Amino acid sequence: MKTSLDCVPCFARQALEAARMVSADVTIHEQILREVLRWSSEMDMDQSPPAMGQRIHRRLREITGVRDPYRAAKDLQNQIALDVVRDLEARVKAASDRLAIGVSLAIAGNVIDLGVTGTLTLSEIQESVSRALEEPFTGDLEALRAALAKAKRILYLADNAGEIVFDRLLIEQLLPAQVAVVVRGAPVINDATMEDARTVGLPEIAEVIDNGSDAPGTILEDCSLDFKRRFTEAGLIIAKGQGNFETLSDERRPIFFLFKVKCPVVASHVGLPVGTPVLASAPRRA
Amino acid sequence: MKTSLDCVPCFARQALEAARMVSADVTIHEQILREVLRWSSEMDMDQSPPAMGQRIHRRLREITGVRDPYRAAKDLQNQIALDVVRDLEARVKAASDRLAIGVSLAIAGNVIDLGVTGTLTLSEIQESVSRALEEPFTGDLEALRAALAKAKRILYLADNAGEIVFDRLLIEQLLPAQVAVVVRGAPVINDATMEDARTVGLPEIAEVIDNGSDAPGTILEDCSLDFKRRFTEAGLIIAKGQGNFETLSDERRPIFFLFKVKCPVVASHVGLPVGTPVLASAPRRA
Repeated sequence: MKTSLDCVPCFARQALEAARMVSADVTIHEQILREVLRWSSEMDMDQSPPAMGQRIHRRLREITGVRDPYRAAKDLQNQIALDVVRDLEARVKAASDRLAIGVSLAIAGNVIDLGVTGTLTLSEIQESVSRALEEPFTGDLEALRAALAKAKRILYLADNAGEIVFDRLLIEQLLPAQVAVVVRGAPVINDATMEDARTVGLPEIAEVIDNGSDAPGTILEDCSLDFKRRFTEAGLIIAKGQGNFETLSDERRPIFFLFKVKCPVVASHVGLPVGTPVLASAPRRA
Repeated sequence: MKTSLDCVPCFARQALEAARMVSADVTIHEQILREVLRWSSEMDMDQSPPAMGQRIHRRLREITGVRDPYRAAKDLQNQIALDVVRDLEARVKAASDRLAIGVSLAIAGNVIDLGVTGTLTLSEIQESVSRALEEPFTGDLEALRAALAKAKRILYLADNAGEIVFDRLLIEQLLPAQVAVVVRGAPVINDATMEDARTVGLPEIAEVIDNGSDAPGTILEDCSLDFKRRFTEAGLIIAKGQGNFETLSDERRPIFFLFKVKCPVVASHVGLPVGTPVLASAPRRA
């Protein structure tokens, strides 16, 4: 997905919110805002939106000298999600269609995203879960079920801390031995890294690797050679979150995207309202 | 009022919306957006927000070659407002406190503003009027009443087309012979100019002058010498709309501002929620 003109005001707003979240120093807020405005004025609109997010958060870490400014937020999100999910495990085990409920909850967990709104509360997570258990997501679950039955190697591209606890629920319903979970290669916003995967016990149920990149999405040319090889060889890719959708939606690979629609630009791209839980597939399978 | 960092993402959004309103050409949308981003990256934050609005709309008129891109929108707003106000005149005449109802309706008319939200419907105007007749505005009406009783020369700084029909209702409750109504010196967004004043019959009840400027507010150093002299000599100034508030709120003159709070930055400045109808006075009278 290319960057829309409508993404640009949002870059400025998100840069300002991020600066305020990682520093109390107003000169830093102004500095990053002015830099983002200058970059945006010259930006290549053929890039996907997360390329700008990567640049903003890299620069914020550089200016503040803090390697992982969202570490405390991520720890809290993992903890809250572990508490919420504990009560859901029995429900998933007892469900008549475990894949359906697993997908629903994995999408529900995508509400844990500090990139778009900046804040999140426990009650918002609980509300997202309640809604997921009542309202169906939009998308072709049977196509995913069929693809899962055939695929030997499955890549599961994770998105955010906290959210990965919900992903674990879904991965347990797949054949975990065939799944490699992919986290970001370095901290960016509250996206999940290897540290988060370990915190929530993902390595105990599946292989976990990182993609070698600090983009809040999957910008292939920025990823490690090892990740790119696995991406090409995978029989099925499950990609979580809007950032992975924005960066991979034009790839001709067998990808299923699981996310909540979080902004008007993506809403118009997928033809669904903001807030919709979506299971979308890539334009054409490789 | 200085420009807040929070105004900057809004400049980009408003520039894009304005470009789309005045042209269907996406290369123009992108061009103005990139220019506004570059200007914003270097801007003097001590300026008031309407200085950027002035620059954006000047440039849009220059690029498109259209002198008054909102002319048709303004004509429509004047017409709708004339229809709405016709039904209100008897009500104002019969009111026990004509000044109070006049102020309420003048503030209600401030909903006719294409600078902030970009669109407006008849039902929104009617809803604003209904609410104004039920809910009181926030502010010291008695201070305005006392100032009106003393003032010999009153300047009434108008804001938008359509809205000026509601202003006429209020001006009729003052001593119109002492009032000079001020419109913008040239078209900018849907702000009222001399053409709008004539369309709604303002010159028939009071003197109407223009301020010599094309800013969507009153940037004194950009106004004509004649206007500046009158501004200094006026015993009382009534200033309509958020743009006039943003540009004049730091002036040590006897100004009463009448407007709806339309954005979080002004809301935080006046300590009232977005949407509040306000009668505010300048920090200290001269």
